[in-house]
Amino acid sequence: MLMNFDPPPGDSESPGLVVLQFSSPIQLQLQAEHFKRVPNSSKLAKKLTHALRYILGEDDDMPTPTLFTEMDTLQHDGDEMEWKESARWVKFEEKVEEGGERWSKPHVSTLTLHSLFELRTCIQTGSVLLDLEGYSLPQIVDDIVDRQVADGLIGPELREKVSFVLLRKHRHQHKKPIHLSLADMGKSNNSPTSEKWCVSTCFSYDVSDPAQSRSMNDISDKPSTDQMKNKFMKKIPRDAEASNVLIGEVDFLDKPFVAFVRLAQATTLGGLTEVPVPTRFLFVLLGPHGKGKSYNEIGRAIATLMVDDLFSDVAYKARDRDDLIAGIDEFLDEVIVLPPGEWDPKIRIEPPKKVPSADMRYKLYVFSQVNGTGTAGGPGGGEDEEMPIPHELGEELQFTGRFCGGLWLDIKRKVPWILSDFSQGFHIQSISAVLFIYLGCITNAITFGGLLGDATDNYQGVMESFLGTALAGTVFCLLGGQPLIILSSTGPILIFEKLLYESNTIDYMELRLWIGLHSCLQCLILVATDASYIIKYITRFTEEGFSSLISFIFISDAIKKMYYPINRVFKPDYVTTYRCECIAPDQGDHLSVTGPTLLPRLSKKECVKYGGALLGNACKYVPDLALISFILFFGTYSMTVSLKKFKTSRYFPTKLRKLISDFSIFMSIMTFVGLDMLVGLDTPKLIVPTEFQPTRPDRGWVVMPFGKNPWWVYVASAVPALLVTILIFMDQQISAVIVNRKENKLKKGCGYHLDLFWVGILMAVCSFLGLPWYVAATVISIAHIDSLKMESESSAPGEQPQFLGVREQRLTGILVFVLTGVSIFLAPVLQYIPMPVLYGVFLYMGVASLAGIQFWERIKLYLMPAKHQPDFSFLRHVPLRRVHLFTLVQIICLAVLWTLKSTVAAIIFPVMILGLMVVRKMMDLMFSQHDLAWLDDILPEKEKKKEKDGKKKKDHKRTKAAEPESDEEVRDED
Amino acid sequence: MLMNFDPPPGDSESPGLVVLQFSSPIQLQLQAEHFKRVPNSSKLAKKLTHALRYILGEDDDMPTPTLFTEMDTLQHDGDEMEWKESARWVKFEEKVEEGGERWSKPHVSTLTLHSLFELRTCIQTGSVLLDLEGYSLPQIVDDIVDRQVADGLIGPELREKVSFVLLRKHRHQHKKPIHLSLADMGKSNNSPTSEKWCVSTCFSYDVSDPAQSRSMNDISDKPSTDQMKNKFMKKIPRDAEASNVLIGEVDFLDKPFVAFVRLAQATTLGGLTEVPVPTRFLFVLLGPHGKGKSYNEIGRAIATLMVDDLFSDVAYKARDRDDLIAGIDEFLDEVIVLPPGEWDPKIRIEPPKKVPSADMRYKLYVFSQVNGTGTAGGPGGGEDEEMPIPHELGEELQFTGRFCGGLWLDIKRKVPWILSDFSQGFHIQSISAVLFIYLGCITNAITFGGLLGDATDNYQGVMESFLGTALAGTVFCLLGGQPLIILSSTGPILIFEKLLYESNTIDYMELRLWIGLHSCLQCLILVATDASYIIKYITRFTEEGFSSLISFIFISDAIKKMYYPINRVFKPDYVTTYRCECIAPDQGDHLSVTGPTLLPRLSKKECVKYGGALLGNACKYVPDLALISFILFFGTYSMTVSLKKFKTSRYFPTKLRKLISDFSIFMSIMTFVGLDMLVGLDTPKLIVPTEFQPTRPDRGWVVMPFGKNPWWVYVASAVPALLVTILIFMDQQISAVIVNRKENKLKKGCGYHLDLFWVGILMAVCSFLGLPWYVAATVISIAHIDSLKMESESSAPGEQPQFLGVREQRLTGILVFVLTGVSIFLAPVLQYIPMPVLYGVFLYMGVASLAGIQFWERIKLYLMPAKHQPDFSFLRHVPLRRVHLFTLVQIICLAVLWTLKSTVAAIIFPVMILGLMVVRKMMDLMFSQHDLAWLDDILPEKEKKKEKDGKKKKDHKRTKAAEPESDEEVRDED
Repeated sequence: MLMNFDPPPGDSESPGLVVLQFSSPIQLQLQAEHFKRVPNSSKLAKKLTHALRYILGEDDDMPTPTLFTEMDTLQHDGDEMEWKESARWVKFEEKVEEGGERWSKPHVSTLTLHSLFELRTCIQTGSVLLDLEGYSLPQIVDDIVDRQVADGLIGPELREKVSFVLLRKHRHQHKKPIHLSLADMGKSNNSPTSEKWCVSTCFSYDVSDPAQSRSMNDISDKPSTDQMKNKFMKKIPRDAEASNVLIGEVDFLDKPFVAFVRLAQATTLGGLTEVPVPTRFLFVLLGPHGKGKSYNEIGRAIATLMVDDLFSDVAYKARDRDDLIAGIDEFLDEVIVLPPGEWDPKIRIEPPKKVPSADMRYKLYVFSQVNGTGTAGGPGGGEDEEMPIPHELGEELQFTGRFCGGLWLDIKRKVPWILSDFSQGFHIQSISAVLFIYLGCITNAITFGGLLGDATDNYQGVMESFLGTALAGTVFCLLGGQPLIILSSTGPILIFEKLLYESNTIDYMELRLWIGLHSCLQCLILVATDASYIIKYITRFTEEGFSSLISFIFISDAIKKMYYPINRVFKPDYVTTYRCECIAPDQGDHLSVTGPTLLPRLSKKECVKYGGALLGNACKYVPDLALISFILFFGTYSMTVSLKKFKTSRYFPTKLRKLISDFSIFMSIMTFVGLDMLVGLDTPKLIVPTEFQPTRPDRGWVVMPFGKNPWWVYVASAVPALLVTILIFMDQQISAVIVNRKENKLKKGCGYHLDLFWVGILMAVCSFLGLPWYVAATVISIAHIDSLKMESESSAPGEQPQFLGVREQRLTGILVFVLTGVSIFLAPVLQYIPMPVLYGVFLYMGVASLAGIQFWERIKLYLMPAKHQPDFSFLRHVPLRRVHLFTLVQIICLAVLWTLKSTVAAIIFPVMILGLMVVRKMMDLMFSQHDLAWLDDILPEKEKKKEKDGKKKKDHKRTKAAEPESDEEVRDED
Repeated sequence: MLMNFDPPPGDSESPGLVVLQFSSPIQLQLQAEHFKRVPNSSKLAKKLTHALRYILGEDDDMPTPTLFTEMDTLQHDGDEMEWKESARWVKFEEKVEEGGERWSKPHVSTLTLHSLFELRTCIQTGSVLLDLEGYSLPQIVDDIVDRQVADGLIGPELREKVSFVLLRKHRHQHKKPIHLSLADMGKSNNSPTSEKWCVSTCFSYDVSDPAQSRSMNDISDKPSTDQMKNKFMKKIPRDAEASNVLIGEVDFLDKPFVAFVRLAQATTLGGLTEVPVPTRFLFVLLGPHGKGKSYNEIGRAIATLMVDDLFSDVAYKARDRDDLIAGIDEFLDEVIVLPPGEWDPKIRIEPPKKVPSADMRYKLYVFSQVNGTGTAGGPGGGEDEEMPIPHELGEELQFTGRFCGGLWLDIKRKVPWILSDFSQGFHIQSISAVLFIYLGCITNAITFGGLLGDATDNYQGVMESFLGTALAGTVFCLLGGQPLIILSSTGPILIFEKLLYESNTIDYMELRLWIGLHSCLQCLILVATDASYIIKYITRFTEEGFSSLISFIFISDAIKKMYYPINRVFKPDYVTTYRCECIAPDQGDHLSVTGPTLLPRLSKKECVKYGGALLGNACKYVPDLALISFILFFGTYSMTVSLKKFKTSRYFPTKLRKLISDFSIFMSIMTFVGLDMLVGLDTPKLIVPTEFQPTRPDRGWVVMPFGKNPWWVYVASAVPALLVTILIFMDQQISAVIVNRKENKLKKGCGYHLDLFWVGILMAVCSFLGLPWYVAATVISIAHIDSLKMESESSAPGEQPQFLGVREQRLTGILVFVLTGVSIFLAPVLQYIPMPVLYGVFLYMGVASLAGIQFWERIKLYLMPAKHQPDFSFLRHVPLRRVHLFTLVQIICLAVLWTLKSTVAAIIFPVMILGLMVVRKMMDLMFSQHDLAWLDDILPEKEKKKEKDGKKKKDHKRTKAAEPESDEEVRDED
């Protein structure tokens, strides 16, 4: 360290002598620091680290309770005095706004260096009473005063006066329910400003016995009802204890009176604290008039220290005054300093999203003490060490080498969760998720059902689509490896069926059955051989390409559906010339001679029914339809987006906002169904089949395997089945990878083999029943996960809620598909829903599944000047042009995929995913592994190489480090 | 202060002795501070303050140059060494992202306390060379090394080695133009991570002479072309000087080598600095290997100090080492400390909107030193002092008591600005402002023209409206007191004209002329008697009520215009039954007998022309009209809002964004005019008159005053004229108050009397010409101001642009009205603009004028839980229920006004403003003056009382303060 400028000539272990050798007292500012700075004094450094470790306990298994700190200041009202709450800390500071009579927003406690040093002096010179046996405040106060008198810090004549002051009653800032404060609103408040808070009725006095309230002791020992009713209690952990800070100016003292008390047992001291939390610590600072602001800052400093994780540990375990001082020194050593010219101290700093944990800080501290590198504070501290979290390969994707080894592991992994898979489903969020996904599923079922019906002459129609969705989905969610995955028909399957139906004269349903059976068999072989392990080569690059493509298809389908013709040549002046007439059929040919025979009483349908022709410039238009559809479509989409965002708005209480956000889709649909009904235009509605029978009357519910085709077809169908298998495998597994992404923080593990097993089985079943084939649907599955995300309830005020994971359970999925099955009976309700509204939901799903993809963020970077770009960690480590190049490759891949999927080649779509993986492999040649580690993940075989490289680099570093041996020593001690 | 715990027994003026009396060295941490802490040592305190004052110079008129700091660190590449730029400071820190090869965003330099103390030690122990005569780097380096050798800090054998290291070449981080870095993108970069930056081609080497580059001296004395081309130069003030910080680890030193150099003259030292700025300061820290991170932090600390306003002053004026130390101590005393458990040091803190100025800090510092209250740091510091800025009453509203005194002052105030009133108009922003306001004005002219035409049987129609707007507006903007005000017809005038025309048999135009003449006379009397002074009773309460009401009217008018009928019963199936037929007129009565005679070849207009009747269920509907109108209307509005917001987005360079934001309205209008043309529906278009003649053929351009009415009418018309006068006066002046709001930071003063003078004169002129009367239009005037707002170009990177004021000039106004006048010739272009688009602009104007009104912010508070409310200063000082009550009163007033204006009572509308002022007066009884000062402004007569109160309070405080005498003493010295 730098102290080796002036190596102390004396023995470095006798600091008392050293003091005078230094040219300025600044070098002594922290005695402890001095030790650290003596060059090569690794023994001493270790001693200090030992000291801190000793205080905190080497094997510290029992965590200390959380501390709630309340700071009360002494208020004078003429001759009367009372303690008024002025701030409180759970983790962050909340201040009482004097004039506002309210709590400020929780904010980071910005302290002055001054106050921290003064606090240190206070602890050094004042009374420190550790493990005081205290059962009531008067007794504790007596003990404090006795000690002060004994130490000669105050004269005995002041004993009475100090006690009197310390036992004045405490007034707390209570948040009133809004209806009460509204009722208060009318009350006139004309008193002069300076006395306003005194006459205010907003405070609740803690007076258990009015007669006693002016006596010596204003404090009662029972918690008051105000305390019990205080809703703030919810924000304080159950095991919390309180530390009370009392700060006051009095006229009888000529020097400050300081006491730091730790009680042997946390004790509820009546109205001392605003909440009924037992008090463990007490810090008292009384001083002569005139320095109020300074005292206040000292109070804030000790309060901030008390809620600091490390210092509170020290405070609980300190054996003497010196331990406390060491704690303050440690705190000082870690503080972050803002230059006065670059920051306005009046700004209240919002709590950050994440704060370093106490453990982390402790480790860093100990490490830095020993290594002498100072703390890791300051931006960029420890930046070199920072590396992206490597692509995690769970045991799920290990190649077991045993027959069905992976499947067996999947089952073993899933069985323990069976109960919680259902119990965790009971939550209000599940209702919104079910509604949302249900609507997505039936829209999908209707869309695909309609298309399949067209493609196969109704061999498979809407009815089959509903039934198949319900059957396959329910089975998969009940028994599959990852019940968050939603099965659905997908585009490639649709194209395959279309080609199959068109291209041969062989009986379609029977051929399809055999293809399904072969494919099922092939899937089972893949399961048995653990073939799914190859998907570990699917990195972020492939994932993003696939899911972006699927999202784009979703979005473009939704928008395409919105086309309705508009009569653009309509001129209001020629309104008299617009009509659409029904012309009798037989006259069509000699129309020019006799003029058409008009049939004005026939409606459009009747006209067509009787073979008439519709003639006129108004026939093909439905006025206002295009635009109302647009409004319904776009309105549903944008209302959903706005309501989703509403969670982070300032309005309404948090719970209500969360509810609104969770039910945003439901509320948007209801709103626009309502609007549609109100406008009353004849928009296309959701029509589900109402009778339980196959769409085509000439087919039954079961397909017979034999009889209609020659025998060789049964064998030859294995070849097209292979295509279907690849298609199913890729589509299923990549969706599963996306669902199982580490960002989703899933806890119950995945089950790729089990998933594929059930998809295979369901194929066979569906083939027998003549239902469409099902596979994981990326977009709806992502929507499912998004609608089930959990956030921590923010505990301390100001703490940001953390994303905890997903409500992993089978209930929502099962419910969605059961509902889909019974939709046939829900037709009377569902018929009010206009299709544009549902396509709006589609659009939302597509756009939402794009959000949060890093690829998307990187595309945006193209449009941003470097200085406005967000502070992504990959931008700190990879040059912008490399980032842009990576993104460009992705864009090109996506464009190629999009072009291919628009042609008949769509059927080899899943094979193209393999193409993506090949492109990714080739990118190893274009990009360094370092860049790829930040932008993508490292491919498995490179992983090991990388690790080796990393180790080499580390070794290199170590040889450069000054005290490698001490580093090693510490490791040994650990 | 707290040091009176341990009163030093010795003489308080001999600190050397005192040192040992203290129980811990912490109390000595800053010797200077120690002085401050000795109780009642006001003499000493003054000494210190004197010291700092002495360094900074008592009469410090010459500001020191701004410092640009660059920090270079020594990089080893095998045996090669070079200095690589690692961070720079103009005001905030920008770091080179090692991996990213780019500049980080500017951020607040978060330092560790450690590094600051270590820096202090460095300055104490290293070489300090002040006012060194330096002309080249080698010579300066020689001087530094000589001094170090002379001081015995390094051995003479190291002289060569140190010089060699210090003269290595400097490599700077240059921002490449994007097209170059895109071209770079393709370059393969497969080198291993650890060496990547070395082979990168992104850096530009500063090698003037390749042959010389490996020689002893890598530094050339001429600025390189890279330096000259560096665009960053724009961000550095012209007079700036550089301070260079060099930090490196070398293997030949066993203890650090520290030097702080101030050159006598700032000198350009070749490639030392990335920009061609002369270097004034040089800080060198070389040390043994292994402490690189620690050195780096020290470098950041000195760099941060050098850009600190106060410290850089000290550095320029320091006479010796101790002055620098005093500067560091002062800095330390002011720093803001963040507790380690509440803040993650990795977070880069964005620069705040505003930082305390150096002057402010200096004053606070001196004050706190003398008073011993510590620094004002920490949130809430000096909060008690905080008071709302009082309602400013310029000399404009003083009652002069002289004939035309106010008018004379107005003219005197305005004359000096005549030239700049035109020259300041030449700016690109003016173009967008003119377009925006022009469109608002013609929309208004057409709307009011149409309504007036209806009300007066076309005595005043659209033609008159255009002409009057052009005439009145041009004259007012050319000669008025506040040329930012836009004149327009307003609602009350319209109602008055309607009543006037309907209610009598007297000749309308002549009567109107006489009313106008009387009213003009009355206005002139008001001007002559300085009657406008009464508007100083218009406080925020009245302003907000008035402007909200006007905005609501604007918004509701815009929305009302959007009603078009939709054929809601249309069923596509019955398309054959919809028609609209023209029936011959004479057959209407025996229709039932023979059936109607259809005239299918006639268009709607022709049908009506020939007296036919339109019959059918399709007649009153225009398909798709309602919805396309809605889309145009709402689209224009929301696109404008989005583009306006675009200024703060991350995309595109700042200038482009500003342009887009400025022209948002124009671009939105163009877009939706384009959409309208594309869709081709027959939407209502903007039709302006194309021939220059009165709307009604039987009236001429001039109205004769006599002849048509009996003589008593000429006299009696003074009575209705009085109503018009009040109406004009209130409407005009309150709009003027809103325009002249202090928030707008107008610099050229206002001219209430002059404004009213011209409004009066124009009334008379318009009456003679039979044109409508004009008065200030609140909403359009606010829009005018908003479109002319200026922001400072951000100078230092990261500094927030400040609102500077409004482009106050007459050019935009004049252009708007000249354009309005010549609109008759613009008809071929204007006819493409659909009215819904213009009403969208109206809606935008209405909503935009509501934004930023505190009333509106307070309404939002009703919906927010207290903890989510923004940190408004009035919420810190006024209890929430009082705020809510105040808002409630405003809402009730507004509701009453709204109800009244919807009735015929609208004509007394301006009188109701007086009513608002009465309500405000009564609120003095409901609210304390303290609350009103925060929520509103204090009424003039209360102002004085308040001032007295404030003084009393202050006095009271002072008696409480401990050292009133020292406070007084300092004041005397000032």
